[in-house]
Amino acid sequence: MGISMGPNQYGKAEVRIVTVDRSTPRHSIKDLNVSTSLRGDLDEVHLSGDNAKVLPTDTQKNTVYAFAKQQPIGEIEDFALRLGRHFVSSAEGINGARILIDEYGWQRIPVEGTGHDHSFSRASDEKRTTAVTIDGDQAHVVSGLKDLVVLKSTGSEFWGYPKDRYTTLPETNDRILATAVTARWRYLHTDVDWAKSFESVRATMLEAFATTHSLALQQSLYEMGKAALEAHPELAEVRLSLPNKHHFLVDLSPFGLENDNEVFFAADRPYGLIEGVVRRDDVEDAPMAWYSTAEF
Amino acid sequence: MGISMGPNQYGKAEVRIVTVDRSTPRHSIKDLNVSTSLRGDLDEVHLSGDNAKVLPTDTQKNTVYAFAKQQPIGEIEDFALRLGRHFVSSAEGINGARILIDEYGWQRIPVEGTGHDHSFSRASDEKRTTAVTIDGDQAHVVSGLKDLVVLKSTGSEFWGYPKDRYTTLPETNDRILATAVTARWRYLHTDVDWAKSFESVRATMLEAFATTHSLALQQSLYEMGKAALEAHPELAEVRLSLPNKHHFLVDLSPFGLENDNEVFFAADRPYGLIEGVVRRDDVEDAPMAWYSTAEF
Amino acid sequence: MGISMGPNQYGKAEVRIVTVDRSTPRHSIKDLNVSTSLRGDLDEVHLSGDNAKVLPTDTQKNTVYAFAKQQPIGEIEDFALRLGRHFVSSAEGINGARILIDEYGWQRIPVEGTGHDHSFSRASDEKRTTAVTIDGDQAHVVSGLKDLVVLKSTGSEFWGYPKDRYTTLPETNDRILATAVTARWRYLHTDVDWAKSFESVRATMLEAFATTHSLALQQSLYEMGKAALEAHPELAEVRLSLPNKHHFLVDLSPFGLENDNEVFFAADRPYGLIEGVVRRDDVEDAPMAWYSTAEF
Amino acid sequence: MGISMGPNQYGKAEVRIVTVDRSTPRHSIKDLNVSTSLRGDLDEVHLSGDNAKVLPTDTQKNTVYAFAKQQPIGEIEDFALRLGRHFVSSAEGINGARILIDEYGWQRIPVEGTGHDHSFSRASDEKRTTAVTIDGDQAHVVSGLKDLVVLKSTGSEFWGYPKDRYTTLPETNDRILATAVTARWRYLHTDVDWAKSFESVRATMLEAFATTHSLALQQSLYEMGKAALEAHPELAEVRLSLPNKHHFLVDLSPFGLENDNEVFFAADRPYGLIEGVVRRDDVEDAPMAWYSTAEF
Repeated sequence: MGISMGPNQYGKAEVRIVTVDRSTPRHSIKDLNVSTSLRGDLDEVHLSGDNAKVLPTDTQKNTVYAFAKQQPIGEIEDFALRLGRHFVSSAEGINGARILIDEYGWQRIPVEGTGHDHSFSRASDEKRTTAVTIDGDQAHVVSGLKDLVVLKSTGSEFWGYPKDRYTTLPETNDRILATAVTARWRYLHTDVDWAKSFESVRATMLEAFATTHSLALQQSLYEMGKAALEAHPELAEVRLSLPNKHHFLVDLSPFGLENDNEVFFAADRPYGLIEGVVRRDDVEDAPMAWYSTAEF
Repeated sequence: MGISMGPNQYGKAEVRIVTVDRSTPRHSIKDLNVSTSLRGDLDEVHLSGDNAKVLPTDTQKNTVYAFAKQQPIGEIEDFALRLGRHFVSSAEGINGARILIDEYGWQRIPVEGTGHDHSFSRASDEKRTTAVTIDGDQAHVVSGLKDLVVLKSTGSEFWGYPKDRYTTLPETNDRILATAVTARWRYLHTDVDWAKSFESVRATMLEAFATTHSLALQQSLYEMGKAALEAHPELAEVRLSLPNKHHFLVDLSPFGLENDNEVFFAADRPYGLIEGVVRRDDVEDAPMAWYSTAEF
Repeated sequence: MGISMGPNQYGKAEVRIVTVDRSTPRHSIKDLNVSTSLRGDLDEVHLSGDNAKVLPTDTQKNTVYAFAKQQPIGEIEDFALRLGRHFVSSAEGINGARILIDEYGWQRIPVEGTGHDHSFSRASDEKRTTAVTIDGDQAHVVSGLKDLVVLKSTGSEFWGYPKDRYTTLPETNDRILATAVTARWRYLHTDVDWAKSFESVRATMLEAFATTHSLALQQSLYEMGKAALEAHPELAEVRLSLPNKHHFLVDLSPFGLENDNEVFFAADRPYGLIEGVVRRDDVEDAPMAWYSTAEF
Repeated sequence: MGISMGPNQYGKAEVRIVTVDRSTPRHSIKDLNVSTSLRGDLDEVHLSGDNAKVLPTDTQKNTVYAFAKQQPIGEIEDFALRLGRHFVSSAEGINGARILIDEYGWQRIPVEGTGHDHSFSRASDEKRTTAVTIDGDQAHVVSGLKDLVVLKSTGSEFWGYPKDRYTTLPETNDRILATAVTARWRYLHTDVDWAKSFESVRATMLEAFATTHSLALQQSLYEMGKAALEAHPELAEVRLSLPNKHHFLVDLSPFGLENDNEVFFAADRPYGLIEGVVRRDDVEDAPMAWYSTAEF
């Protein structure tokens, strides 16, 4: 009976890089968290510690910094494609790479009514993301966002579910619906205006969340994914992970008070977790595009 | 030799409350994290476990929720004052209270160009704060903000410091300056338009950070505090805690590349920590206003 | 061109349950974090919001609590199997379930040399984990541990790696090797003494980490997995995710001091990330056992 | 009306240092998180950005690393005293320093029944702490611990408290009592066997927590502090911050089940927060010893 090495990858995680475009006095900045992973013919390092094919994670980190100087970073999808293709084409024995990038947004600090030239404040906790996979000569781009917290103060119901001996939840036709959106969408190709597509997918999904009268968070999930696909032919599929951040109506009756959906307790744990894929029917699956990404 | 009980306080921490104003179809929401602490003649519970003067923390939590229904929360300073005065006036043996509130901001989700009536997204990680202390018949209000991350991509120098045998840092006349602002300012009285004052203090400090050509983060701290005091006669003092979030210039010379303040590594730890009080000369100290707040 | 719902699951995440066995005055406690996900014929809720087949996540939570009373929890694998099988057998339209459990360890507080009957302290940040998947009438058990932080102060080298134009890392034959182990191992069947197997797998992997003279963290990973498989015929495969928590030798030469591997800076980010599967050759893959688990 | 600079301090926070004692093949390690703050005549840097008296935080960091090489770190109290006295005696214009150190515990990995020579695992999330203040030629040592999570599964009651219109909590004579202990104790002098004193204070407080039949968490707090003071004449006072980590009895009656204090929900927020000082009557206060420490 033998034992052997199965699938594996290695790399440098969370390289925090900030670049400043100083080409004019009106600076702009990019603030990224970059993780690189390489895949390939790596049995030897596991079996005997022979590093002959192990491009060090330190070198991967250096490459991220050097590439950011050699050419403006541009959109994170393009930067990830450049990095991934570089590793696969130049490192011996490496035939795959997965580049994850999170981008933090910044806005100009307003001074006398206009944004300052070189002073910025962090926009929000929300991150724009990409996960680019290079698999031989194929490239997959899966972009997205995370930590986008949204809430509807009405327009959400939950009823008609099965009851069993463990059911205590009352049905409701008016509740708060809140979630922290993690979304990833796969592109059909790489000939995309990434920034424009991102902004449009994000706006479309937010609008779908806002305008869907929701009978279940699953329904909101589907409407968000469907709206994104309908408006963006460049997308193959959308994956959403939506924690149902419960807001419980506080029982004020012991104090002689009514609570007409006005006062809520925002709970931390447990939370619902709704995960799903919305996809275009006529496109092929691409399991390698999703291989070992963190979310559903 | 005796042993006895010294200063103490107890309460309920981090009551997460969300309220919805449904008085019109265009809802508005308040999202708060409220902590209450009571002080007074509490020797007995410590020495013998006699709870006769211990208003339970559970009751304190209930009071927060009930008060939110009985009257609109309004500004967090007013809500905290109402809560603190209630506890001190109604609980036997209690002569002091400290109410901490953090407020999370939300904005309307844009739909077809306008903000939606009842769908919101979390604005930012920044929190507006207040720390209200009721001490007998005195009330102190210390308001502020935290987690406001700001960055200047130029306009910051650091040189002229003493050198000793442990000095290795090179002097610089151009560096990134970044910090996460925690600010608390004490009001001279409670006859204040809290929302207006908050927005104006915040804008003033941001503008001072942006426009100060900084020779040291301490100088920026002072300019921020001074600007706030000069423009706001209602303030007695401003306390600032400013982590110096280091952005290190990456050495690209091994790769034959120059780095003209363009590519930086954003470090997590260690970080500088600059803390200080800027104050109006002609006002009295109020140590009780600051008693056991978390920051400098 | 149609759009439709792809794979999906939903459930309640992070149900924090603590049980006390009071059958004798010498209590014992169980402290778990339980997440349940259901899978099945769930198109309708996504497409139209029809909840007829959606067992509420609230009911799933209640079931966790009720099951903990109806029968002692026992080992987390057994508890997860009972929960998963219950959902699949009793909820209409549900044909799959995935139960994740993290267990926190506690130890008795020593009083006069022996452990106290009903007073405990949290043992460590390390968690014992299980991920049980019910797929129709099949059951997969993947157990493991996470947040087990380990360090070797010598016995680790790194050299012989390829150099390119972005290489600056010097080779070393003596470095600190530190990681936070996340391990998951799949069982071939469910007829296992779970507690005994867990303790033994854990001890075996720790011992392999300690005694492997490491030329690469990948080699340590393989040795840990191989040792676990060799000693435990009940295991099919082991998956390890090992962040390389870098400890950088501080350059003390500017201060006229040598640093003979004595003084290190423990960095937060970036970190290496080494992930891989070690597996028995003669067993079949079980992709469903791993479907949508968080780690590699 | 003038504006001026009030109290202030600055320094380097969270210097993560790991040292290896390699004097024999049986290594030992120290793992510390060190924060230094300097105080003194620092008006100029705030008012004009003149850094002539600002020993850079980078130099402070270097000093921590160099000192760790020049002499074994030893106990964290001694290391902090050496650092603080160095800064106050050598930096012009600096007359005060506050050194905070957290120490992480490690244990040897067992291999064939004995602890390995150079392989270790992190012991727990608990940290041993010290806060040393140098104020001119005075030195204050305040040591402690944090993140020590403890739980009593019985032996805790809560009743006899005042009821008002917002009271809903039922009285109980049997509940779970759980907390995460943060304790800081001030030493009367510096002629102390720090390690021995720490271990003994910790054991004494844990035993007091375990053996106190608790009518209120305040009573447990006092008993813990009193026991520490009684057994340790070197202590002047003990400050404790005890979050009451609520474990709520789950209502299983809807499922036809009794819950005889067996099944609990462990809540995250809100939590009670009990803070207090237990002190020896005949010693003087030392406010400077506590100046701007984070906890009560």
